[in-house]
Amino acid sequence: MVESLKTPDAMQQWSQKKYKMGKTVGLVPTMGALHRGHISLIEASKQENDLTVVSIFVNPTQFSAGEDFEKYPRDFAGDCKKLEQAGIDALFLPKTSDMYSEGFATYIEVRGISNRLCGAYRAGHFTGVATIVAKLFNTVMPTHAYFGLKDYQQCVVIRKMVSDLNIPVTLRFCDTVREHDGLAMSSRNTYLTSEQRLDAPILYKALCKASLLISERRLVKFREAASLMQQLLKSSAHISEIQYGSVYDSETLDDISEQDASSYSGKPVALAIAVKIGSTRLIDNLIVTVP
Amino acid sequence: MVESLKTPDAMQQWSQKKYKMGKTVGLVPTMGALHRGHISLIEASKQENDLTVVSIFVNPTQFSAGEDFEKYPRDFAGDCKKLEQAGIDALFLPKTSDMYSEGFATYIEVRGISNRLCGAYRAGHFTGVATIVAKLFNTVMPTHAYFGLKDYQQCVVIRKMVSDLNIPVTLRFCDTVREHDGLAMSSRNTYLTSEQRLDAPILYKALCKASLLISERRLVKFREAASLMQQLLKSSAHISEIQYGSVYDSETLDDISEQDASSYSGKPVALAIAVKIGSTRLIDNLIVTVP
Repeated sequence: MVESLKTPDAMQQWSQKKYKMGKTVGLVPTMGALHRGHISLIEASKQENDLTVVSIFVNPTQFSAGEDFEKYPRDFAGDCKKLEQAGIDALFLPKTSDMYSEGFATYIEVRGISNRLCGAYRAGHFTGVATIVAKLFNTVMPTHAYFGLKDYQQCVVIRKMVSDLNIPVTLRFCDTVREHDGLAMSSRNTYLTSEQRLDAPILYKALCKASLLISERRLVKFREAASLMQQLLKSSAHISEIQYGSVYDSETLDDISEQDASSYSGKPVALAIAVKIGSTRLIDNLIVTVP
Repeated sequence: MVESLKTPDAMQQWSQKKYKMGKTVGLVPTMGALHRGHISLIEASKQENDLTVVSIFVNPTQFSAGEDFEKYPRDFAGDCKKLEQAGIDALFLPKTSDMYSEGFATYIEVRGISNRLCGAYRAGHFTGVATIVAKLFNTVMPTHAYFGLKDYQQCVVIRKMVSDLNIPVTLRFCDTVREHDGLAMSSRNTYLTSEQRLDAPILYKALCKASLLISERRLVKFREAASLMQQLLKSSAHISEIQYGSVYDSETLDDISEQDASSYSGKPVALAIAVKIGSTRLIDNLIVTVP
């Protein structure tokens, strides 16, 4: 049985004790509905820490009005089995009312990068993310924390927050885990009908084709890679909305499609996509080093 | 000689070592130009902690445009003498460029209470305060932190932030230290001309008289206490502007002057004032328990 800590106070007592013992603690923050992507983060944490803590908390403040907070997949029994099998040291499982007591009013805003890409479509999302991650860091006091690169903008926002606020946590961003056909693992994939599911790998295909254009130097401006992605996404029968699909500066998240590829020579750029398939929002990205 | 730590990294290394040794560490955050108010915070910290750290940092993000950031009193030589005499364990003395590197973008907002009282006159002030205090907490990792009640709204904002973000620091708010004539100690008092200085104790006099009205049950509505303060402040020859002067809920900072005193029976309320004497802004407050 995995040790469960159900209140911030109980978690903090556990953490302070381990910290004073000089233990390294890896935190894998999740919203549950665990898949192989989460498990890969746990494996990464176990490899470099004395102890690994997983948190499961479906964080209401990162959902915008009208989003899927209520119906977000929850599978506590399944999660517990997976965590026991993975072999973690503690599970932090707070209640919403313990994390956000009445009159909660404090929010962490990472200005600029939070309003781009997904932020432009999900008002307040990254403020909710930054706030809950800071709360989890203060509660679990990890030495290391693990996030999946599938949520690339989230990684950039958290990296900026940790650096700006001097938070004493070492961040690890781990590669996206994919299904056999390339679809990035996501708890939201379960929303897809079987027909939509067949079409969903087109995000990854578009990213790979655009990535090849860049790595094989077959373009002058990044616009050509962005256009190729757009063209492929538009050919899909099930994509109802393309929210964004372009080439971005990997740190500032500026859209750089109008820039010459040569101006980024030797540097990484981010190819990133967000679409809706039916009412399900899917995102994916690839980081490519420009030759 | 007091041990000085001049970068966030050096400070953090010191702190992590002490934390792992199980030491209690008290932090007294200051902007320098130390006076007896600061020294009283240091004394309070020394009484209940193994180690006491003072930070000196004139924080640019808590000054609004047009305020006195540039001319804020600085007296490093004098501060060092006072700190040696007080006997502290470490002095954290970061440079502005180390605390706010280029592209700094992360701010902590305590919504609601940050926009009242002083917040209405100092745009972004409490966001700057909350942000720097969180940074200092992450860098110094204190078990306890000490703030003066003279900046009452600051205490309320920090208390809310610490609670909302689960920051593992015990807060202590210490009584305002006053000059012989009642003027609250403040680094900004040095801005006053000798004539203005003679007039400045009127803030405390107004607070005391209003406080007596309440504690001796000589009013029905708090409005009577607010009016008495306003009347006294208006009688001053040197007060050029009364920004606020009223009775407030001690937690929400709502103006409660239209409420019956009896509705707060047994509870503390805050009498608070902000005025300008010439171009110098002075604030003061008293917390009174309603009989």
